[in-house]
Amino acid sequence: MGRVTTLVEGGRIVTATDDYVADILIEGGRIRAIGDLAGTEADEIIDASGHVVFPGGIDPHTHLDTPVAGTVISDDFDTGTRAAAVGGTTTIIDFAIQEKGADPRSSLMRWHEMAEGKAAVDYAFHQIITHLPDSLLPSLDGLVTEGVTSFKLFMAYPNVWMLDDGAIFKAMRRTAENGGFIMLHCENGYAIDALVKESLARGDSDPIFHARTRPSLAEDEATRRGIALAEMAGVPLYIVHMSSAGSARAMAEARERGVRAYAETCPHYLLLTDDRLAEPGFRGAQYVCSPPLRPADHHEPLWNGLAAGDLQAVGTDHAPFFFEQRLVGKDDFTKIPNGLPGIEWRVGLLYHYGVAQGRFSLNRFVEITSTNAAKLFGLHPRKGEIAPGSDADLVVFDPAGSTELSLATQVTNCDYNPYEGMVLQGAISAVLLRGRAIVRDGRYVASRPVGSFVRSAESAALSSSTLVS
Amino acid sequence: MGRVTTLVEGGRIVTATDDYVADILIEGGRIRAIGDLAGTEADEIIDASGHVVFPGGIDPHTHLDTPVAGTVISDDFDTGTRAAAVGGTTTIIDFAIQEKGADPRSSLMRWHEMAEGKAAVDYAFHQIITHLPDSLLPSLDGLVTEGVTSFKLFMAYPNVWMLDDGAIFKAMRRTAENGGFIMLHCENGYAIDALVKESLARGDSDPIFHARTRPSLAEDEATRRGIALAEMAGVPLYIVHMSSAGSARAMAEARERGVRAYAETCPHYLLLTDDRLAEPGFRGAQYVCSPPLRPADHHEPLWNGLAAGDLQAVGTDHAPFFFEQRLVGKDDFTKIPNGLPGIEWRVGLLYHYGVAQGRFSLNRFVEITSTNAAKLFGLHPRKGEIAPGSDADLVVFDPAGSTELSLATQVTNCDYNPYEGMVLQGAISAVLLRGRAIVRDGRYVASRPVGSFVRSAESAALSSSTLVS
Amino acid sequence: MGRVTTLVEGGRIVTATDDYVADILIEGGRIRAIGDLAGTEADEIIDASGHVVFPGGIDPHTHLDTPVAGTVISDDFDTGTRAAAVGGTTTIIDFAIQEKGADPRSSLMRWHEMAEGKAAVDYAFHQIITHLPDSLLPSLDGLVTEGVTSFKLFMAYPNVWMLDDGAIFKAMRRTAENGGFIMLHCENGYAIDALVKESLARGDSDPIFHARTRPSLAEDEATRRGIALAEMAGVPLYIVHMSSAGSARAMAEARERGVRAYAETCPHYLLLTDDRLAEPGFRGAQYVCSPPLRPADHHEPLWNGLAAGDLQAVGTDHAPFFFEQRLVGKDDFTKIPNGLPGIEWRVGLLYHYGVAQGRFSLNRFVEITSTNAAKLFGLHPRKGEIAPGSDADLVVFDPAGSTELSLATQVTNCDYNPYEGMVLQGAISAVLLRGRAIVRDGRYVASRPVGSFVRSAESAALSSSTLVS
Amino acid sequence: MGRVTTLVEGGRIVTATDDYVADILIEGGRIRAIGDLAGTEADEIIDASGHVVFPGGIDPHTHLDTPVAGTVISDDFDTGTRAAAVGGTTTIIDFAIQEKGADPRSSLMRWHEMAEGKAAVDYAFHQIITHLPDSLLPSLDGLVTEGVTSFKLFMAYPNVWMLDDGAIFKAMRRTAENGGFIMLHCENGYAIDALVKESLARGDSDPIFHARTRPSLAEDEATRRGIALAEMAGVPLYIVHMSSAGSARAMAEARERGVRAYAETCPHYLLLTDDRLAEPGFRGAQYVCSPPLRPADHHEPLWNGLAAGDLQAVGTDHAPFFFEQRLVGKDDFTKIPNGLPGIEWRVGLLYHYGVAQGRFSLNRFVEITSTNAAKLFGLHPRKGEIAPGSDADLVVFDPAGSTELSLATQVTNCDYNPYEGMVLQGAISAVLLRGRAIVRDGRYVASRPVGSFVRSAESAALSSSTLVS
Repeated sequence: MGRVTTLVEGGRIVTATDDYVADILIEGGRIRAIGDLAGTEADEIIDASGHVVFPGGIDPHTHLDTPVAGTVISDDFDTGTRAAAVGGTTTIIDFAIQEKGADPRSSLMRWHEMAEGKAAVDYAFHQIITHLPDSLLPSLDGLVTEGVTSFKLFMAYPNVWMLDDGAIFKAMRRTAENGGFIMLHCENGYAIDALVKESLARGDSDPIFHARTRPSLAEDEATRRGIALAEMAGVPLYIVHMSSAGSARAMAEARERGVRAYAETCPHYLLLTDDRLAEPGFRGAQYVCSPPLRPADHHEPLWNGLAAGDLQAVGTDHAPFFFEQRLVGKDDFTKIPNGLPGIEWRVGLLYHYGVAQGRFSLNRFVEITSTNAAKLFGLHPRKGEIAPGSDADLVVFDPAGSTELSLATQVTNCDYNPYEGMVLQGAISAVLLRGRAIVRDGRYVASRPVGSFVRSAESAALSSSTLVS
Repeated sequence: MGRVTTLVEGGRIVTATDDYVADILIEGGRIRAIGDLAGTEADEIIDASGHVVFPGGIDPHTHLDTPVAGTVISDDFDTGTRAAAVGGTTTIIDFAIQEKGADPRSSLMRWHEMAEGKAAVDYAFHQIITHLPDSLLPSLDGLVTEGVTSFKLFMAYPNVWMLDDGAIFKAMRRTAENGGFIMLHCENGYAIDALVKESLARGDSDPIFHARTRPSLAEDEATRRGIALAEMAGVPLYIVHMSSAGSARAMAEARERGVRAYAETCPHYLLLTDDRLAEPGFRGAQYVCSPPLRPADHHEPLWNGLAAGDLQAVGTDHAPFFFEQRLVGKDDFTKIPNGLPGIEWRVGLLYHYGVAQGRFSLNRFVEITSTNAAKLFGLHPRKGEIAPGSDADLVVFDPAGSTELSLATQVTNCDYNPYEGMVLQGAISAVLLRGRAIVRDGRYVASRPVGSFVRSAESAALSSSTLVS
Repeated sequence: MGRVTTLVEGGRIVTATDDYVADILIEGGRIRAIGDLAGTEADEIIDASGHVVFPGGIDPHTHLDTPVAGTVISDDFDTGTRAAAVGGTTTIIDFAIQEKGADPRSSLMRWHEMAEGKAAVDYAFHQIITHLPDSLLPSLDGLVTEGVTSFKLFMAYPNVWMLDDGAIFKAMRRTAENGGFIMLHCENGYAIDALVKESLARGDSDPIFHARTRPSLAEDEATRRGIALAEMAGVPLYIVHMSSAGSARAMAEARERGVRAYAETCPHYLLLTDDRLAEPGFRGAQYVCSPPLRPADHHEPLWNGLAAGDLQAVGTDHAPFFFEQRLVGKDDFTKIPNGLPGIEWRVGLLYHYGVAQGRFSLNRFVEITSTNAAKLFGLHPRKGEIAPGSDADLVVFDPAGSTELSLATQVTNCDYNPYEGMVLQGAISAVLLRGRAIVRDGRYVASRPVGSFVRSAESAALSSSTLVS
Repeated sequence: MGRVTTLVEGGRIVTATDDYVADILIEGGRIRAIGDLAGTEADEIIDASGHVVFPGGIDPHTHLDTPVAGTVISDDFDTGTRAAAVGGTTTIIDFAIQEKGADPRSSLMRWHEMAEGKAAVDYAFHQIITHLPDSLLPSLDGLVTEGVTSFKLFMAYPNVWMLDDGAIFKAMRRTAENGGFIMLHCENGYAIDALVKESLARGDSDPIFHARTRPSLAEDEATRRGIALAEMAGVPLYIVHMSSAGSARAMAEARERGVRAYAETCPHYLLLTDDRLAEPGFRGAQYVCSPPLRPADHHEPLWNGLAAGDLQAVGTDHAPFFFEQRLVGKDDFTKIPNGLPGIEWRVGLLYHYGVAQGRFSLNRFVEITSTNAAKLFGLHPRKGEIAPGSDADLVVFDPAGSTELSLATQVTNCDYNPYEGMVLQGAISAVLLRGRAIVRDGRYVASRPVGSFVRSAESAALSSSTLVS
């Protein structure tokens, strides 16, 4: 007996470059043909006429089920990936965290266990490196072999997560040889720690001081430093959760002179301001994340960066906590667990504020939400495109619909919605994961979790001098 | 009886974003389906296995059969488009030139007549505006209606082609309303004229003084001015034949701050230097073009601009002349007709120096040689992509082959080859124009010219704030 | 019988670089010696103990008694220079205006006649060139010989004052040979004219539309163009009345790469905003000047430019009119005569907002208000310094005093004070012009005008690659 | 009996701003009066007619008698300061070095002992901090009280001299309160160490690899980081021995946005290239210094920086060693003691290459060689100017003379001259230290060393937002 076939009929197909009306024939979870396929038989027919069909979103930055600061992120691989699914994201890349002193591969095993059998969407992993003596460098090679090719290092949090520039530089040189790819959290940890200490000493311990002690200059500095280290090491670089105008400018300058630097920002850095941290009743704690939310004049440079190709992707840094979990930092903002939810709204927010408001084209929207992440993290061409041979991860989107964001209706396991009340243009009608409709009429409909691990190959950033985006 | 069908089998299909192996079914000149089409019948089968199949090139800047400086460009729509075809270009955009004082539409008619029935590839037109009193502004609207939506204006050649900033600004404002798109030749004509006069007065009349009297600063200045005028007018802008590092930098800065500025460069600005103008025996005259060839340190910034997305396209400014035609300027470089051939080698040079030498990806190569021009000049999605519904303009390329550039073998009607002796990686095996193989085994094989006029719709630059590339 | 001697005793002497306490012996209007001169006899003794003594201010940009737009500036060489004197300015540089078609030297004669015998302070002249066919180039040489070495050209006001880039470039080349120095009014006249026409056509004719139709981009563009022209011509350049952040940035970039570009700004561009143009009852007309007042975010970059040395001087562009004179533009802002008063308050405003508010040092204040103008316009070492041999043009300043700006007390012949009510730190006690006290206790006390014409020698900008400031 | 008086007659006196002919009366080592002092009696008359008289040079960066890498710098306070004197430098600022773990004040005492009674010119001290736990922060305050107000910290040499960004930031915050001033050695030590390790592992151990493992990017990065830390800390900053174009650009950008950043470069970074390190026979070792000599394209940006005011001073980083001392690094460039001589030639080289070659004015030369250092390090107005009350530290310079640089004639205690054979325009005729001629006819003539310690007061950088130049 043959493999299951599905025909998605008459949709307007939009990829990172194309825009045309056609049918898509899916067989065994992969796209078999695209075109005028009138008359083709299939086990299932999905009518996409009047709808836009684009590649399932890829969220390159999530943290599910992760122990942080004495508590655990409130979304696990079950709730978090269902939230992703209804939001149009069919692949996430989560972060395994090396335990201090241990081989990073042991933590990776743990993440595999957490995700296995629970995920509603496909998933890949980045590996966070918190400790990198020369003796552990070979384990980076091993990770590449196991399909985890991106390593995140911190320039912030001295004595906790931070690696010094020497370890960062060595890790970069190693990836130049093993096919890996370095990701950096760019904030100057030492300067921030000194400012934090001063702040607490003055008695300034409320959530807003989280933002005040992490000035954008501390991020700008680290961004430029990270770029310089990558330039000296001769390797490409991916900067996570960029939040500042100065960093966007550093990206533009780096790319202009031919450095292979890439960056993601997050929806909250594009749309929310640091005013949120001053909300009364300690509600500001719900907006504590690092880098912090910035004043509004940082927004437009980040949007421009996405539009002009200086920034390449939008991840969520999804890390929700309940209000109760934040209370531990009532008298000391440094104890508040850091993070905002976002996995569910990323695609919708970018369509509304990006495409519908004229900041960039629908093609660019697909690049930013899906294709670039696939290319940068070695998931392409399986993921991030609509082409014969690719996984049939598809979003069927109704541009005439609308979507209201609200705690009342969200899938994300959290007790607030940072975008509460926003009404977005467009609505997600259906989501297909490898040909199987896991979302219909905006609701998650899979009877059991069918997401599986996707191995990352080498980043496209390695194989050509510059990946345009 | 049905329409003719062709099946291109088993090629590695590369678009501006995708890269996969599949079959392409063509019907009636358009792509009907793509995928695993094993078993599909067709009137003609083309075996593309082991080959790369990419969209036919679009050369956004050619001058065929055009009267210039008392002589006529040596390629007409017959020889010039055959040269294009064998070089992998299936669409050119040529320039109709307004006669001073006349309605630009009358010149457009003349260009239609010159091309009709002679062209081996499809063609569209830009309209050069040399004279724009307020009374002629409505004729710009008329051109848009007739499928010519891009208007080229000159900041150089006072009293000949130049429009003052007031006329340029008004033209820009008009296009903000009528769906047109302004293209600018950026050089400060007044400063150059003063330098030229000084040079001739000193007796410096050899070809090299053509370059010395057109310093890169004169181009940089005009580039920034053009961008500022477009920014004030609130419209997008396309800068033709960019040749200088300073202009590439101006582009990066403009795009970073959200200005919709686009630019093309030419193969000769990427690969040749001003040393050529000093060749003895007046041979330097063969390298006179405007802007002039620059010193080698301008090359890498232009390549970087293409790779990073600050420049979007490569045109040829194809304008060949025989040596004999140049002799009129023997004692006065200002009389040498300006221009270099290039239409035949653009795609091959960019594959070799761009892709094979690692400057950018194969996807980016497709964007630069085809897709971006299609989008910017309203030819997309008919042209510039491989997707159902698009014209089946395809290049079947053998990456294992090689191509030697030489006067001996060129189709271009000219008595020299600026790239004489270069051996490029890769070879064009076949070229399809709307499904019909016009080139096989690298030779033009069509029995009669089948190229036709393609109407330009509105530029994609108008419909979103920034077109990424 | 010997020449008159004066001894200024015990002041704190501040120059562009020094700061010390000493006595100054003046003989015959010039400084003869400085130091511990206890016991020296003199015809007059001025006690400066507890006071700061700095060089008399030089206002490099004034317009007195000048016919503009069908009316005449309300201050002539009598009232205007008395206002200068009480404000601490001992030399002004006024602008002679070439009549269209006439030799510029004939207008210079007229300005000499207007000033002769009326001026309370010394004066030099710049020459405005409004018309420059090649046949008039030699008259620039003649002006240099007559002690007028700086020529102001306009990039704004097409068909009225504007010279095209060709004439500007030729003038620059001429000064490269004759010791002259080009000053530019940088605004893109063509773009502005088009915007003005659109505005009036829409019925937007109130004073605020003067500002809205002269966007800062039009100034930034022209500033960069002017710099590029000077760079190509290989000559230094002085940009008058710079008002925009973008222009200040262009200066920083130009100077960084070694271009000899200099700029002045005016007190109103440092302190007033375009809100003033919206004042009701047509009072906004009192704030119409070109370039226009800008939003507040332009202020700090201009202050930074002065502090960091990217801008070198502050002139006033003094051009007062009575409200009645403005009324001619009631229904059409283009008819409002342009200009603001300022000659009387420049030194005081810069002391208060510059020195007292910590933006720059007292030394830098002297450079900005006096020394740099003297060097740039060939008046140094006679003017702008306190050193043996220099003219004894001195301000005796009480840093402990205060000064209220008010229409009620001003000398300027005008019916409003743009700085009404401001209370400045410090007060001018006495002003000496060539050793003679023309101001005492803040009042003009000379029995008759003693100002005389000062010939300009070659600019210091010509003799070294960069004049630091 | 009165104090000794000296009259310097008829010289052309040049300061950072002035240029005039006058007599200088000196009494008790200080300038008493300047002017036309004809007829004044004095104990000694020095005829300066036909000569330029400028303030004695201040070398803000010397290392005398200092233990480095197991050896000792070959010039001590005797030979080194005599070399300074004949070269026109009357004040040096040498570096006391904190011993690890010890209070920095103990090292300062040692430096006082080394200099006391030996120095031919006056001297002040900077304090190098190599170890800064919070417990030692108060000792910085103590140093300020003792007249040592500038603290040099290293961003290079991890585990030897380097402080982490946290310690640097805290030191900066402390100086914001105690009147101190932070100086930084800007190179990314960690990246360099990794590159050095790689180089040695490859067997690349020759002197040239010293330069290759310290790329300019490592300096540029640290320069930007240092500036960002100072900006966040809200304090001014002085960057020592800047050597790269990228760092000069960082300075321009910093100053443009109002950051109080200052920098010095050295003669060898302006004039010598890294080719020197490849000299055969291990002679390249004589050119090992950090940062290393750079390729020639770094020179012009540094000269431009000095001319435009983005760099403020030139120090020598004087640190000579005999060839024999270098031999310890024969098989490992990291063991070569670092440093070049320069103290003797700084003033002459800057006159020749700066003033005589038209790069900047004579006034700017005085600022760069003397006045700015005096202001930045709290020695002004005693040092760095010619004004009543100042120390009579004077150079009497013959602009018509010439000076050949050569090992044969040098005073510097070293066995090579990096500038061997250069013939400089101008010659130093006499040098006065506090009124006493210590050099006549180019030779050191003092019978005994008369230099003494000069206390540094607060930097002028602290008292106003920007010190120009």
